Amino acid sequence: MVQANDPARPPIRVSCIQFAPQFGDVAANMAHATDIVRAAAAEGSRLIVLPELASTGYVFESQAEARSLAEPVPDGPTTRAWAALAAELNIYIVAGIAEVAGDTLYNAAVIVGPEGYIGTYRKAHLWDQENVFFAKGDLGFPVFDTAFGKVGVAICYDGWFPETFRQLALGGAEIVCIPTNWVPMPDQPAGEAAMANTLHRAAAHSNGLFIACADRVGVERGQPFEGQSLIIGPKGWPLAGPASRTETETLSALVDLDAAGRKDLNTFNSLLRDRRTDIYG
Amino acid sequence: MVQANDPARPPIRVSCIQFAPQFGDVAANMAHATDIVRAAAAEGSRLIVLPELASTGYVFESQAEARSLAEPVPDGPTTRAWAALAAELNIYIVAGIAEVAGDTLYNAAVIVGPEGYIGTYRKAHLWDQENVFFAKGDLGFPVFDTAFGKVGVAICYDGWFPETFRQLALGGAEIVCIPTNWVPMPDQPAGEAAMANTLHRAAAHSNGLFIACADRVGVERGQPFEGQSLIIGPKGWPLAGPASRTETETLSALVDLDAAGRKDLNTFNSLLRDRRTDIYG
Repeated sequence: MVQANDPARPPIRVSCIQFAPQFGDVAANMAHATDIVRAAAAEGSRLIVLPELASTGYVFESQAEARSLAEPVPDGPTTRAWAALAAELNIYIVAGIAEVAGDTLYNAAVIVGPEGYIGTYRKAHLWDQENVFFAKGDLGFPVFDTAFGKVGVAICYDGWFPETFRQLALGGAEIVCIPTNWVPMPDQPAGEAAMANTLHRAAAHSNGLFIACADRVGVERGQPFEGQSLIIGPKGWPLAGPASRTETETLSALVDLDAAGRKDLNTFNSLLRDRRTDIYG
Repeated sequence: MVQANDPARPPIRVSCIQFAPQFGDVAANMAHATDIVRAAAAEGSRLIVLPELASTGYVFESQAEARSLAEPVPDGPTTRAWAALAAELNIYIVAGIAEVAGDTLYNAAVIVGPEGYIGTYRKAHLWDQENVFFAKGDLGFPVFDTAFGKVGVAICYDGWFPETFRQLALGGAEIVCIPTNWVPMPDQPAGEAAMANTLHRAAAHSNGLFIACADRVGVERGQPFEGQSLIIGPKGWPLAGPASRTETETLSALVDLDAAGRKDLNTFNSLLRDRRTDIYG
């Protein structure tokens, strides 16, 4: 039961860029990330996902420090730089950013494309000390309608909430881009793969969505990150990755976004239609 | 942040019984399953989970055939037999059953204990041909308050819906018992572990629940089943299993149900409290 939006739509190459931002050095991070984006675009990637807070780093020590690194969106230098790069390379970029809007800071992500700035997502579920520095996202779970398909965005701890992916799937998303800074979970047994991989594979399967997770690596002010970036198909199986726990790495996969429209499992069952909204509280 | 219901409550040994019911031979299935339950109880298990439709088998070929094998609950012979066994052994049993209520059939599960019949769950999300034979469950997602703790029940395809576990967690469940008959999913790569294991590990982690999945094995009227029964802790890590894909096997784990009350992850975060119900549609 193909429910294609556009039968002529070709597959698109998606990349997740896993790297280690240097805390507070926006210029260096943008230069390094731009080099990697250029390399991925040169290999044919048209949608490129970067980590959460990719330009600033993650471990803020004060509100003042966070404020000093945050930028307006879309009229700040980082968003303008991503938009210029996307236009030059004819690609789409989803990248985490510290956003300031008036007096309020958000842990956000921007999506830009050849046409310029497309939109912003603000992280809905804040993790740990983020609650000190950022306000909770107030934009819901927007789905961005681009030339290549319908894109949702979620950030890190958002992925712990199955509601995130349900909202995006019901909103028509075909692929969810996840800028993230996964940290080890409490009580994680040594050597086990990141629980985040399990969570996102389950979400992809239960919703028939592609999910592209770009994590960071490295240790910042004592906080280690998990790496293990992953691109997942709409049946929940990995298309690329997981990446390593510690190294800079670009994952890429060719994805047929029409597959995200095939929610039917058999004559009787269809993933979103089968929800029992009549008995969910 | 321990939120224990009863600080003196001891751990309880939980078992999942994976076996191959023979289609239509209720007497033989009950005799075989009873032997295995007795063995598990002899080793100290106090909560024992059996597969979906454990007494009848799964692959009905007609409504008349399903009706001929279905029983009233709690006043049918199978539920009475389970209740008698639970009383004799001082245990709790959760077992799948084909229920008839008036003119309506349900793919159901009963929970019985030393005190007798406790309750029924009727499968909310029906898979494939089950839609021909059974009505959709109309009891919501009850949480059964037993002497050892709060028990939810869900059956097989229910586990594909994150809402199932959210409802049960919000209802206070500490452990969810899953009688199941997992079948291979469409597009499952050869040799991959059952996607069901990924789904239930994610659900346990996102909700801080114990989940005990008792699957069947064997091939019935051409339909293979997946085995790979699993007992999962509230952080999403396996406590026992996955069991084999093909063999009769009893999984057991000692569980401290108080751990399901510890939903706090750090000073700021708590699994259920962090839900953004203000922006979920």
